[in-house]
Amino acid sequence: MTGTFTGRSPAAEASPEAPGLSEPSKGLTVVTKEPYCAETPLPELDTWVTPTERFFVRSHFPVPHLDVESWRLIVDGEVDHPLELSFADLMRERTRTVVTTMECAGNSRSSVYPPAQGVRWHHGALGTARWSGVSLWDVISKAEIRPAAIEAVFEGADHGREPGVPEELSYAMSVPIVKAEHPDTLLAFEMNGEPLTASHGFPVRVIVPGWYGMGSVKWVTRISLIDHSFRGFFRTKPYTFIHEGDDPDVLRKPVTSLQVKSVITWPPEGATVAPGRIVVRGAAWSGEAAISRVEVAVGLPDDSGEGGTWRPATLLGPETPHAWVRWEVPIDLERPGYFVLRCRATDERGDTQPLRAEWNFRGVANNSMHAVPLIVRRSA
Amino acid sequence: MTGTFTGRSPAAEASPEAPGLSEPSKGLTVVTKEPYCAETPLPELDTWVTPTERFFVRSHFPVPHLDVESWRLIVDGEVDHPLELSFADLMRERTRTVVTTMECAGNSRSSVYPPAQGVRWHHGALGTARWSGVSLWDVISKAEIRPAAIEAVFEGADHGREPGVPEELSYAMSVPIVKAEHPDTLLAFEMNGEPLTASHGFPVRVIVPGWYGMGSVKWVTRISLIDHSFRGFFRTKPYTFIHEGDDPDVLRKPVTSLQVKSVITWPPEGATVAPGRIVVRGAAWSGEAAISRVEVAVGLPDDSGEGGTWRPATLLGPETPHAWVRWEVPIDLERPGYFVLRCRATDERGDTQPLRAEWNFRGVANNSMHAVPLIVRRSA
Repeated sequence: MTGTFTGRSPAAEASPEAPGLSEPSKGLTVVTKEPYCAETPLPELDTWVTPTERFFVRSHFPVPHLDVESWRLIVDGEVDHPLELSFADLMRERTRTVVTTMECAGNSRSSVYPPAQGVRWHHGALGTARWSGVSLWDVISKAEIRPAAIEAVFEGADHGREPGVPEELSYAMSVPIVKAEHPDTLLAFEMNGEPLTASHGFPVRVIVPGWYGMGSVKWVTRISLIDHSFRGFFRTKPYTFIHEGDDPDVLRKPVTSLQVKSVITWPPEGATVAPGRIVVRGAAWSGEAAISRVEVAVGLPDDSGEGGTWRPATLLGPETPHAWVRWEVPIDLERPGYFVLRCRATDERGDTQPLRAEWNFRGVANNSMHAVPLIVRRSA
Repeated sequence: MTGTFTGRSPAAEASPEAPGLSEPSKGLTVVTKEPYCAETPLPELDTWVTPTERFFVRSHFPVPHLDVESWRLIVDGEVDHPLELSFADLMRERTRTVVTTMECAGNSRSSVYPPAQGVRWHHGALGTARWSGVSLWDVISKAEIRPAAIEAVFEGADHGREPGVPEELSYAMSVPIVKAEHPDTLLAFEMNGEPLTASHGFPVRVIVPGWYGMGSVKWVTRISLIDHSFRGFFRTKPYTFIHEGDDPDVLRKPVTSLQVKSVITWPPEGATVAPGRIVVRGAAWSGEAAISRVEVAVGLPDDSGEGGTWRPATLLGPETPHAWVRWEVPIDLERPGYFVLRCRATDERGDTQPLRAEWNFRGVANNSMHAVPLIVRRSA
């Protein structure tokens, strides 16, 4: 642990773009003000670890401002010994640090056609951070979890109303026990070596590596072990694969692991470059497998996603289980003109990216190939 | 003329969303603050004439605040008698009123894939207004236009810098003489029976019916007749059809007439409705031909744009040469579920809407079919 706990969320000047937030969001693009959702422009994602102040923020409700002294974590449900833990109790456990890529399930929704319901993220609800905390299982297993428990439900201190729901809701999401048991699933209190900021979950959040961000519940105050599939609003409505014609009352496949995906972080979309060789750079990730291959092509794709010549990119280090890999590939663009670059990643299971992902009503888990238009100017 | 000229732009309280604007923009969605670009939510386009305060605003530069007393219009170039006209000079001509549908060339750009460069409009850079003024030709023909003139260039008082252009620019756009001659091409000073507001071009703007909005130059102060194709920045860069592989120095086809298109204005995208019959409503338009048919289908399209059963909509009056037609069609949705509606219009030339319009670098003139996801809830 490198941060220092003062009992308060780190002080910083208020951002005019983030009502109710006590921290700035430098260089982020605000997508919705209430709740506060802001994304990272792709050129700002051109490093392995994303600086905290450039890390996307997804809020469902107003950001709660919690106090570390009074914060408590309840562990209940299918347990023999329910717990109520303080922050000091957590600090007695062995700390663990993981670097994970986090992507919002709604990332890249803005280009989904037909238009999908939800925050209209471009591609920047995405980032990689170094999270420190304690293994979730080390903490909750002390409650003596009963064999009947099949899921752990994380509940945050953030709450409010959702359209069509009569009562007030807290944000809550579940994971299967097998994910809760994984030592890299954390109760995290540090991000990139500093205490969590208010908008990233101070004082304690869950980190579920390999999953879309909806599982990494911020401001966590309760963990309930349950003997059935969680049917809370956020699990069954926004974070689920709903297809055309589906009955609203039938449960669909939930959104869980990150699909294989890649983005071009340089050059920026619409950039003008000089003729000659450019080095195209980016990131690639997949929730449950390592990336085996990234390719870049120049030219508009045909309907199958082919068109142009795919060139293999070099995968750069470091290789870690839960973080994206950086990649780069030199591309020769000798002739002035308007061009389109696109990239696709393939993982060790053989999963790869489609030209356009299968449509779903919420526009979640969109891993369509990223395409970057580019102008090659005439040389001076 | 029903408005009263006071010599100033109509006073109104300042909008916090519109820096430098002296008028409110009720119910508009701000897309960019500088320059100020704001669009109309589709449910607000559910009337034949769009109220002025709900009419989309497309600015290229800060909004100029002009004075009607000092305003002058220069007519020069390929003319025997250059003119300098005052507002009082215009008022001596016979007034003419036209109702026209105006659509920004970049409307519906947000869903273009690969991402296209420019303001990321959803579908609401669109509206219909009643414009009053004088026929452009009645005014400029007094300058005794030479036979060599093939285009008229409209220059606005708005000016500023564009990326990659060393000198400051004024907004300017050209039309061929045949369009300038049309009696419905106006120098307009009223919108919906009131003097123009500052953001809509006070005191005088051009109205070019049947064209995308870029031709209807606001705050017009100069009209130059030229004997060649205009090569100004706005004509050759943003408002042109650029395709993948094009050479930046070769002129491409300019954006001119509105392509055939339709939108669903009710129900709103993502609405929840009761099971049973709903009446789907919308608008349809085409620049150079009347609308002959509008159809609505339920269901996800296949790659050809088909899928589901197309049902013909009833076209509603009034029929006028330059304004959209309203349409409606009852659709039975008896079963609860998630559905997607889509519409397509066909004009009297036989032009119709593609599922996805051919890609171009600027994402202009996108007339892809509009699709509206919908939830049919369980009754009671």
